[in-house]
Amino acid sequence: MKRTYLDWNATTPLRGEARAAMMAAMDVVGNPSSVHFEGRAALGVVARARAQVAAAFGAEGADVIFTASATEAAALAMAGRELQCGAVEHDAVAAWCAADLPVDSDGRVTVADPAKAALQVANSETGVVQELPEGLALTDATQAFGKLPFAFNWCGAEMALISAHKLGGPKGVGALVVKRGSDVSAQVKGGGQEMGRRAGTENVIGIAGFGAAAEAAAADLVRGIWDEVAEIRKILEISLAESEKDTIFVGNGVARLPNTLCFALPGWKGETQVMQMDLAGFAVSAGSACSSGKVRSSRVLRAMGFDDNIAASAIRVSIGAATTKEDVQRFAKAWGAAARKFKARHGAG
Amino acid sequence: MKRTYLDWNATTPLRGEARAAMMAAMDVVGNPSSVHFEGRAALGVVARARAQVAAAFGAEGADVIFTASATEAAALAMAGRELQCGAVEHDAVAAWCAADLPVDSDGRVTVADPAKAALQVANSETGVVQELPEGLALTDATQAFGKLPFAFNWCGAEMALISAHKLGGPKGVGALVVKRGSDVSAQVKGGGQEMGRRAGTENVIGIAGFGAAAEAAAADLVRGIWDEVAEIRKILEISLAESEKDTIFVGNGVARLPNTLCFALPGWKGETQVMQMDLAGFAVSAGSACSSGKVRSSRVLRAMGFDDNIAASAIRVSIGAATTKEDVQRFAKAWGAAARKFKARHGAG
Repeated sequence: MKRTYLDWNATTPLRGEARAAMMAAMDVVGNPSSVHFEGRAALGVVARARAQVAAAFGAEGADVIFTASATEAAALAMAGRELQCGAVEHDAVAAWCAADLPVDSDGRVTVADPAKAALQVANSETGVVQELPEGLALTDATQAFGKLPFAFNWCGAEMALISAHKLGGPKGVGALVVKRGSDVSAQVKGGGQEMGRRAGTENVIGIAGFGAAAEAAAADLVRGIWDEVAEIRKILEISLAESEKDTIFVGNGVARLPNTLCFALPGWKGETQVMQMDLAGFAVSAGSACSSGKVRSSRVLRAMGFDDNIAASAIRVSIGAATTKEDVQRFAKAWGAAARKFKARHGAG
Repeated sequence: MKRTYLDWNATTPLRGEARAAMMAAMDVVGNPSSVHFEGRAALGVVARARAQVAAAFGAEGADVIFTASATEAAALAMAGRELQCGAVEHDAVAAWCAADLPVDSDGRVTVADPAKAALQVANSETGVVQELPEGLALTDATQAFGKLPFAFNWCGAEMALISAHKLGGPKGVGALVVKRGSDVSAQVKGGGQEMGRRAGTENVIGIAGFGAAAEAAAADLVRGIWDEVAEIRKILEISLAESEKDTIFVGNGVARLPNTLCFALPGWKGETQVMQMDLAGFAVSAGSACSSGKVRSSRVLRAMGFDDNIAASAIRVSIGAATTKEDVQRFAKAWGAAARKFKARHGAG
């Protein structure tokens, strides 16, 4: 069966540029900590990728600390600091803060004390984009990096989380980006790597892929590919609304990521929708897909004031540069047909 | 210039089996936490690698928790536990324990209370192999895994550290292996991955490489390749002794890794030797190569009772399956010539 991948916010296909850089790095034998020629060559691969990521993220002059994930970067930035955040943050951030900052019905968070708060640039489920206050302690830029014109140097935050696999790089590589001079104490100790802030031999191959993917993503952004993606998302939104008049769209009154569409059909459980669409050949998600196999009512939607019935009935379609108009039209047709069956079974149609 | 890589304990060339598995994993699109087909396919890659690593390490039935390095695995196993260890442990372990267990002149550690101690299987600098006491809290098997017939299930330790890049897998992937039922509390939180013990999207490509490398390494071990390596190491040892009569060999009276030779020429600084050999085309190391660019007097040798002069004058040659008799003979010749020049300059020749 033909498969159509519409879950790019969960993870993206590996870019050709990343693949090529990773294959080249496979031939680099040394340990970046070794002082001999082979070691220096490996260190050069890491240094090049660090510069590529910094340039793509508008973080020239900042420190890019490579980690195994944005999740690890969040732990490195947040453990022991008791930052404040809103309930729309990703679990990886929410795990470290009291998620009690107010969230409005559009998903926007009001930050009381920026120096003690974490705020995402964009939400993974709804795509809603936040306005970052000056002096923010931490921003989670995982979903925004590569999709929005965003520059760390100008965003007003002290630190940022990013991840390779959200922009065409490999899974298992992320970074904490910090303003030079910011203090971060290592959680993984016992080696001088990453300026003593994160010990352990570097993931040279994965880091090479991150660098190449970030560079390619930045070039794509400049070329305007996300405008095209937003056009296709618009077609999806219109097709779904035509297909099923009771569809509720989330966050479409405010600035959103260009690729993300969150919508609900009250009563039809999100996880059921995901499974039915999976059987029909489409990969989409309900709630955050980044937690192991669990699907629940969306914390993000509940924070926006949606009742449990709607929050449990939402799914996310997130598309990418490879997604076509035909892909989303086929999806809308399949989803609409399934929605009609659901309503017929439950006497609502 | 022809380069000869003799620093396999620092890191190894990527095995063909690992490369092939990684390239196959590059085509797997999904996030292992996604419930749809693409997600389950990615989870399958991780599950297969986990089984391969467990089988190769004799750890069937144990939990293999993938991390970004053995260093991260050490932090996961040791933080907050105040285990005891000897001064011969790797920095990644020593960072978490008071390194005050007694070490004898052969590098063997006496463990007082196994349930509260960490002890390596084999030392990275000298290759010296320890006898593990029953009920040991933790063993660092990073250097032994793949080189010695070692089975976690029979070693008597509760937990073990392993790393992919020491046995032909990629850098940036390790694991903490724990007896099922052992408790480990997550340091990286905010996701259910690795049974809730280590959050963050998995390094699917790297993990696939670890699995394939571990399987291949286990097959090599059974085939007896390390007996051949030990023969070549013996040739190296004899050649060096013939080349320079004042050479001091470390640990060659006790069981050692088959590939490791640590030796010193008093007064000739290890880092100088490494640099001179690098210029001559050989990659070797002084001290542990796993710390960023730093070279110092060997803590391991000092723990064995060598004076600072010798501890600062030692280097390590560590070889692998690709190393030939000719490689080590050329090295011994080059090193002997440089040693004679050193002695001539310093009036000792």
